Amino acid sequence: MARYQVILAYDGTQFKGMQRQARGRTVQGVLEEALRQLGWQGRSALSAGRTDAGVHASGQVAAFDLDWRHTPEDLLKALNALLPEDAAARAVKAATPKFHPRYDAIARRYTYRLFCQPQRDPLRERYAWRVWPAVSLRPMQQASRELLGSHDFASFGSPPKKGGPTVREVLWAEWDQEGDAFSFHFEANAFLYHMVRRTVALLVEVGQEKTDWMIMRALLYDPQPGIVQELAPAHGLELTEVRYPERE
Amino acid sequence: MARYQVILAYDGTQFKGMQRQARGRTVQGVLEEALRQLGWQGRSALSAGRTDAGVHASGQVAAFDLDWRHTPEDLLKALNALLPEDAAARAVKAATPKFHPRYDAIARRYTYRLFCQPQRDPLRERYAWRVWPAVSLRPMQQASRELLGSHDFASFGSPPKKGGPTVREVLWAEWDQEGDAFSFHFEANAFLYHMVRRTVALLVEVGQEKTDWMIMRALLYDPQPGIVQELAPAHGLELTEVRYPERE
Repeated sequence: MARYQVILAYDGTQFKGMQRQARGRTVQGVLEEALRQLGWQGRSALSAGRTDAGVHASGQVAAFDLDWRHTPEDLLKALNALLPEDAAARAVKAATPKFHPRYDAIARRYTYRLFCQPQRDPLRERYAWRVWPAVSLRPMQQASRELLGSHDFASFGSPPKKGGPTVREVLWAEWDQEGDAFSFHFEANAFLYHMVRRTVALLVEVGQEKTDWMIMRALLYDPQPGIVQELAPAHGLELTEVRYPERE
Repeated sequence: MARYQVILAYDGTQFKGMQRQARGRTVQGVLEEALRQLGWQGRSALSAGRTDAGVHASGQVAAFDLDWRHTPEDLLKALNALLPEDAAARAVKAATPKFHPRYDAIARRYTYRLFCQPQRDPLRERYAWRVWPAVSLRPMQQASRELLGSHDFASFGSPPKKGGPTVREVLWAEWDQEGDAFSFHFEANAFLYHMVRRTVALLVEVGQEKTDWMIMRALLYDPQPGIVQELAPAHGLELTEVRYPERE
């Protein structure tokens, strides 16, 4: 029996998120189902974090203990033969016996995609939020710079445990623009529940000049839980990477 | 009553192609259903061409006669409110009374997308073909240059009417590469049935160095109907534009 780490990619459209639930199809559920067909008898596969229903991932991380007589490369192929079309293993490797994808993670990276068009566009909306009126890059970039460093993000989300700490350290918060398409790169040591989607919702309001970029500074200096009500839609969001100390 | 031209975008995954059929959901079918709700009583909406089941479009063109009292802009909004999520009107304008999207077209442009990865990737495979072993750009580009100009494409597809002409004029045939992702731009005055997908299938064999790029020249100089059996999958293909003389 050894512990394995697997990097997962999934199209979140048909999943009720990562984490197994009493009802509904989840990524953890389909992973465990595949593992069971390989002889796994564990109680629960571990993961780096829940993602909301509809959120995509190219770099979600899971771990499990398995009695596997072949190479990790063979395990990768076996998993991909058993996982459904909208989920796949990107890489598998042996992990240290105590490796925990959530507790050992030192940073998570997300990309949020949007594009600015007045009319629906079925070929782009599966993986990006259609926003109209159009946003301007400059105020969104300016507001995003305020996010860098350690701040109390209580205005933007709730902690995993009620009353838990709401300070997070942001390592990267930057927009890219390519024509009418915008991508927001957001990396932190950890995120509060809904933090990415609420932050993006506010940044878009700033980008549409409905509010000034200084609001970001104000909300980080004087946190007001519950004040940011809007939630950017899940389908624009992708978990792209979970980072670990070198040894993992 | 006036004739309108509409540019359609659709995610082809859930469609049995553009053209109405006895069975199965088609883009023409959902367009006509939307039009009927706007009072349309025509027999058939016209389109620039059938696309195969699963093929996507950002620039398909359709036309219909409608008694519409408001602006084309209003018609665009009305159509988008009535069309399903995976199809949308990108633009609507008044056309000349005899405008026919197929017969008046002077050129069609397609993009075929693929990427080279050994493992499945659910976030990319909806709109691109996963190819492995990886292709090399240079031989594919070299073979593609042979396509330019007027040639008998009988090796690559069949004409709309049995025994009809198989000469087509290619205006653009070029690959782009970005990392492991390749896009093939293919424009011609018109295409034979399956011509894009068979051409791409052969180009990929050339790119994988299973066959030499000179095969392209040989098959264009000495056409051999039925010789190219492989068909690149529909989900990598997108109809991006149909071109008309200036007046349309």
